[in-house]
Amino acid sequence: MIKIGIVGGTGYTGVELLRLLAQHPHARLNVITSRGEAGQRVSDMFPSLRGHVDMPFTNPAQADLKSCDVVFFATPNGIAMQQARELLDAGVRVIDLAADFRIKDIAVWEKWYGMTHASPELVAEAVYGLPEINRAQIKSARLVANPGCYPTAVQLGFMPLLEAGVVDRLRLIADVKSGVSGAGRKAEMHILLAEAADNFKAYGASGHRHLPEVSQGLTSMCGKPVGLTFMPHLTPMIRGIHATLYATLNAEVDLQQLFEARYADEPFVDVLPKGAHPETRSVRGANTCRVAVHRPQGGDTVVVLSVIDNLVKGAAGQAIQNMNLMFGCPETAGLKQVPLLP
Amino acid sequence: MIKIGIVGGTGYTGVELLRLLAQHPHARLNVITSRGEAGQRVSDMFPSLRGHVDMPFTNPAQADLKSCDVVFFATPNGIAMQQARELLDAGVRVIDLAADFRIKDIAVWEKWYGMTHASPELVAEAVYGLPEINRAQIKSARLVANPGCYPTAVQLGFMPLLEAGVVDRLRLIADVKSGVSGAGRKAEMHILLAEAADNFKAYGASGHRHLPEVSQGLTSMCGKPVGLTFMPHLTPMIRGIHATLYATLNAEVDLQQLFEARYADEPFVDVLPKGAHPETRSVRGANTCRVAVHRPQGGDTVVVLSVIDNLVKGAAGQAIQNMNLMFGCPETAGLKQVPLLP
Amino acid sequence: MIKIGIVGGTGYTGVELLRLLAQHPHARLNVITSRGEAGQRVSDMFPSLRGHVDMPFTNPAQADLKSCDVVFFATPNGIAMQQARELLDAGVRVIDLAADFRIKDIAVWEKWYGMTHASPELVAEAVYGLPEINRAQIKSARLVANPGCYPTAVQLGFMPLLEAGVVDRLRLIADVKSGVSGAGRKAEMHILLAEAADNFKAYGASGHRHLPEVSQGLTSMCGKPVGLTFMPHLTPMIRGIHATLYATLNAEVDLQQLFEARYADEPFVDVLPKGAHPETRSVRGANTCRVAVHRPQGGDTVVVLSVIDNLVKGAAGQAIQNMNLMFGCPETAGLKQVPLLP
Amino acid sequence: MIKIGIVGGTGYTGVELLRLLAQHPHARLNVITSRGEAGQRVSDMFPSLRGHVDMPFTNPAQADLKSCDVVFFATPNGIAMQQARELLDAGVRVIDLAADFRIKDIAVWEKWYGMTHASPELVAEAVYGLPEINRAQIKSARLVANPGCYPTAVQLGFMPLLEAGVVDRLRLIADVKSGVSGAGRKAEMHILLAEAADNFKAYGASGHRHLPEVSQGLTSMCGKPVGLTFMPHLTPMIRGIHATLYATLNAEVDLQQLFEARYADEPFVDVLPKGAHPETRSVRGANTCRVAVHRPQGGDTVVVLSVIDNLVKGAAGQAIQNMNLMFGCPETAGLKQVPLLP
Repeated sequence: MIKIGIVGGTGYTGVELLRLLAQHPHARLNVITSRGEAGQRVSDMFPSLRGHVDMPFTNPAQADLKSCDVVFFATPNGIAMQQARELLDAGVRVIDLAADFRIKDIAVWEKWYGMTHASPELVAEAVYGLPEINRAQIKSARLVANPGCYPTAVQLGFMPLLEAGVVDRLRLIADVKSGVSGAGRKAEMHILLAEAADNFKAYGASGHRHLPEVSQGLTSMCGKPVGLTFMPHLTPMIRGIHATLYATLNAEVDLQQLFEARYADEPFVDVLPKGAHPETRSVRGANTCRVAVHRPQGGDTVVVLSVIDNLVKGAAGQAIQNMNLMFGCPETAGLKQVPLLP
Repeated sequence: MIKIGIVGGTGYTGVELLRLLAQHPHARLNVITSRGEAGQRVSDMFPSLRGHVDMPFTNPAQADLKSCDVVFFATPNGIAMQQARELLDAGVRVIDLAADFRIKDIAVWEKWYGMTHASPELVAEAVYGLPEINRAQIKSARLVANPGCYPTAVQLGFMPLLEAGVVDRLRLIADVKSGVSGAGRKAEMHILLAEAADNFKAYGASGHRHLPEVSQGLTSMCGKPVGLTFMPHLTPMIRGIHATLYATLNAEVDLQQLFEARYADEPFVDVLPKGAHPETRSVRGANTCRVAVHRPQGGDTVVVLSVIDNLVKGAAGQAIQNMNLMFGCPETAGLKQVPLLP
Repeated sequence: MIKIGIVGGTGYTGVELLRLLAQHPHARLNVITSRGEAGQRVSDMFPSLRGHVDMPFTNPAQADLKSCDVVFFATPNGIAMQQARELLDAGVRVIDLAADFRIKDIAVWEKWYGMTHASPELVAEAVYGLPEINRAQIKSARLVANPGCYPTAVQLGFMPLLEAGVVDRLRLIADVKSGVSGAGRKAEMHILLAEAADNFKAYGASGHRHLPEVSQGLTSMCGKPVGLTFMPHLTPMIRGIHATLYATLNAEVDLQQLFEARYADEPFVDVLPKGAHPETRSVRGANTCRVAVHRPQGGDTVVVLSVIDNLVKGAAGQAIQNMNLMFGCPETAGLKQVPLLP
Repeated sequence: MIKIGIVGGTGYTGVELLRLLAQHPHARLNVITSRGEAGQRVSDMFPSLRGHVDMPFTNPAQADLKSCDVVFFATPNGIAMQQARELLDAGVRVIDLAADFRIKDIAVWEKWYGMTHASPELVAEAVYGLPEINRAQIKSARLVANPGCYPTAVQLGFMPLLEAGVVDRLRLIADVKSGVSGAGRKAEMHILLAEAADNFKAYGASGHRHLPEVSQGLTSMCGKPVGLTFMPHLTPMIRGIHATLYATLNAEVDLQQLFEARYADEPFVDVLPKGAHPETRSVRGANTCRVAVHRPQGGDTVVVLSVIDNLVKGAAGQAIQNMNLMFGCPETAGLKQVPLLP
């Protein structure tokens, strides 16, 4: 059994890790920390875990993280970069669900995240945990930077097109829509039900932190810089991301075949039949990305529709997928949940 | 492996049976029928099942249900009563998720359901599938009448009080609230999102079909007729039932202790700590009933709060719990899902 | 034109007052205060008011409230009781939308609200602003205590029964459900969309502040103490309260006729036809209370269904109705909005 | 007073017309027809109208529409084209809220709507009722084709750019999101709350009927054919459309100034300050379109955000705006509602 530690388990990615790990055949939770909730039972905070997780939160100062095989950071940005070094030195592998190790260019990271990076040397070592592109490196990684939710949906949607070089890489548009759990479990006004329900809006038009992460990923797919417009929207639902991606074709290609071939061996990417439209609820609670590719009116614009559950394939599920790879488990271990529909 | 047949798999209880059975360690789906969708793959209708259920719907006329060990009827009322006899005669056990066999008094059933009963002799044989009260009989039953969703939540809430005889059985009130999936997967105007969202209303004040079912159950708990006011409400959510139950105490009793003792050995009833309020999302997707008992202001009114997922403990999950009992599986086999929260 | 001042206009009752007053034929907003938002334009905070309210928030210290004819307090509890005296002394009439002056028994108020009352002498003078029962006193009042949202729905539902003395006053049950805007515009975790959507729960079973307010009102209707169980629930919608009220009949009476006669002359209480179920959206945005009365199965339990928009008849609309009475305007002035449906 | 007739008043545009007309100072409802609901009171179907609309539905065969000054068709597509001629001949002016007269090219219309047009000669006469571009012609029109909901939001968003000729007209993208009331008041499975809530999906990627309508409008703005990709999405909310529009700049221009100048005199288009993001609820229930223009990262992609209430500016409100123009009323008469927020 893999011995698991979780740092910061009171947010949505934390509770989702707990939900998934409670059903994992090869993992056992050793310790979960929270400064604010130390001593409280996890299941008192999240009654959905009653009968599944009986442990209390441990004060970080007293937590024996070094005896774990792997530690997940389900913390705000800026925490893992301060604590990862010590764990790695102790032989513990680390998966960061926040953004600390996602962007290779330290200056870019510091600009978008507004902090000085505490361990830039680890950024170089960290492997970007998108298994569909970095599977081999993840297997041997000590430190994995788990991708953001939007970046997962967008990269998996654009990947076949950019790898095949069949679209204009300089004019990519990602119109992305997220449920409110993507904003985290924070008491903020704009995500109150009375503010966000029965409402739809864009935000971050001037720039969103996931833009440089996506750009870096897309650039590596085609080997050259890309031009990307990235527009996030807040949607009145709890979970789910829907990415609507636009690109201009510059080659004749069987798009359906291209996507099916690219993802034929991927356990967690499901290419829908021609003409289909994926819906976010079809992946609710599951580690699946469903994509469909369209060419409206037969023109030269290709439209890719890509959906994930932001808390699973966009966060906790992908983190466990990475853990499975790192520890030699079957990649799908603990991740076979059937989506909850309706 | 238990060989499973499902009659009528295109409704919400059908897709929920499929979701749960896909993860069951001792069951395998043999056949699923639908007149309207014969030939179509189940997963084309419910994309959430892609990769989990690869079977098409079979035309009922061609379906080999008799080779199954058990057949679930996830049909409208009035179907199982016409087909159960033939299956039972062939040695197949039957679990009806509709109402055909729930009410022992045929005249009462016919009045509330507006049909002539096609096999009244089976009603006498059928076991009412509420394991918390009928566990022993279920184990040996050939034919199980799976309880309704409201009746499950209400009976589990009142049971400790009525069995102990500590409340006035003639003045019981059940104020119940259901998500819209309780109305079934039917194209009806009043459950459109544009009609039912951001809205709350009562319905059926003059009488709801679950009233005689609940009354029968409560009567059997205390051995005498009960007086029950039953008020259902439609709530703008997908899943979940919340029953708020009122009764007048006529004896001094430690309510918390009474409930905890009654359900100490029940795997699917969770008594919350004193002072707690269960929420429907804490059981979303799981076969759990969570209850809390209150005595506001220390008066003689006891208030019980009882929540279930109407599609799981209120339908498909409870049906599988019954199947487990009937076939000697561990009662919790295939039913260990952690609720999806948020 | 009535010169209006609003203290604390950044909450939901504040923005609702602004929405309604912007359309009032006899009122004009003079000043609106906010400590935190002073200088900001109201319509920058609430873009829905662009083109309708062009004023900025004024710092309370500089606000000339004394030149107003009436000042509305749309503040948290405990503010109006400190400032009302000075305004009243200056000849300004005051309508408090918070709870400071609602409960006549100071000790009871202090117990439930956890504060020492700053101006108990004003409590005696204050008129409880439920026009359907206190119309005459409101007309001449200097200080009006605008009722709470739950209390409005519950009192209007029980009123005909208690005034006529046809139910057991000692065994009343109010099972009440509220949309989340009833919790106010506050950044709190439990009313986040990701926490409160697709969910239903009771709260405050051990006691809610609206209980003593309702009890006081019901007591005054029948002239004797009442026994009331009051159970609030949080509903996943923005606006709306639905009260389901239970009482035991102790006299034969034509309930429909009783209700219709009681409310025949009330402009804002609509008794639905026999057998109907009011829905909250049917009063969305309007100052109307719709009620229906039922007697399930012809038994001795009477069930009243009562719906209001918590921000209108339950707060800002009723406050304007009171203002109309105080200033001799037609009672419906500025309150003729048609509910928004769907 | 303008004498009003409404044909087909049982859908969402019908009830919205009734809501708005009930408050109109210069209009009076004479007759409203419905084949299916003849004899029933309008307010029995829509309780929100109790006290505001006391008329019953009239059987179309008996309806005296010719004595009206104007008749609104709030019918499915294909009805107005059969009945408009007779009304026009009788001197009645006609506003069609369906699509019968929106598209000038009959062959295109017949292809997208799958019917033979019953009165092509009227198509030539009909004026497309987007006041911001056709105000003068609307004033003198006998027959107005009220625009679709998506087309209103998209055209008002692109208009300043295309009229000024500052973007590449051959590469326009409209990513549009609609609340479910846009699908009409029809009992269809995919818009059930249990199907559409907590879910997001695209639809109609291969082609939506609003595409040719929008293309025609954009073409007329720049005088040359446009290339448009139009992607609609279903959003889990009742009302509201959010259009996110993408175009490539081919000239240097002050975008904010361009938009503010274009709409300076428009009573129902509100250009938000630089950097703002309009939200759909900010126009809920009102005839306003709010737009914001962005240039992310200072690149050559312009992003326009445009929101309307699909039932008001996208249907009934715009129809009344057109009526006001046709009958010489102030353009804003009856359309001054403040949006309902929250």
